[in-house]
Amino acid sequence: MTYDSANIFARILKGELPCHNVHEDDIALVMMDIFPQSRGHTLIVPKAASRNLLDADPADLSAVMPLVQRVARAVKAATGADGLRLMQFNEAPAGQTVFHLHFHIIPIYEGVALGAHAGGKADDAELAALASKIAAEL
Amino acid sequence: MTYDSANIFARILKGELPCHNVHEDDIALVMMDIFPQSRGHTLIVPKAASRNLLDADPADLSAVMPLVQRVARAVKAATGADGLRLMQFNEAPAGQTVFHLHFHIIPIYEGVALGAHAGGKADDAELAALASKIAAEL
Repeated sequence: MTYDSANIFARILKGELPCHNVHEDDIALVMMDIFPQSRGHTLIVPKAASRNLLDADPADLSAVMPLVQRVARAVKAATGADGLRLMQFNEAPAGQTVFHLHFHIIPIYEGVALGAHAGGKADDAELAALASKIAAEL
Repeated sequence: MTYDSANIFARILKGELPCHNVHEDDIALVMMDIFPQSRGHTLIVPKAASRNLLDADPADLSAVMPLVQRVARAVKAATGADGLRLMQFNEAPAGQTVFHLHFHIIPIYEGVALGAHAGGKADDAELAALASKIAAEL
């Protein structure tokens, strides 16, 4: 399996497509998932090109993890979630839909079932408000 | 939330309880999940003490990720899985049951639904065979 640079996250990283940007630095872009499984579902997209965990440069994985942690803390603070799941999918049978490595931070709220991934597009105004709130906690 | 050193993974790390060991080094212990969600469900348990992602030392997160990748590749090679999920749970509402940071590598097989976490204990002989097979691919 090889990396296809026409994937949607590569195009967002190049600025060809918009996103609900939470944070950007040399390592990664942090943005809201527009098909959230719960309120505050956030993605960390490393800038280094890889298809997923399997073909990533180990140094890039090491570099991004402190940011994944910071995002997890910020999402929890901004949403008041009771818990968080970190998820990362490899290949389509596992649920990967965009073939550029990314990590999901999914807030869990007690008594609220998770939505299906890509179950429905969220409201843009709500995503923009969440992005600002999470950015303020980063 | 603070770290409780009497948790079951801390006791396994100290050698007080057994496990189906795949690999051990200075950074982490890799072992089979005895309540697997699929065949080959493997855990990476960093030796550094933290409750979960939220309170971990960022340097420890960076250190463990190359091993998480190696385990993912080895599990895929050993099981022939069609995909893999990397999951990590933070706090009980998110599904965390042992309060020592750990990463799940969950093989996905096309057309096979995942079992519930902690749905049932796997056969020890089967887990031992899987541990050997994955270790051979590491």
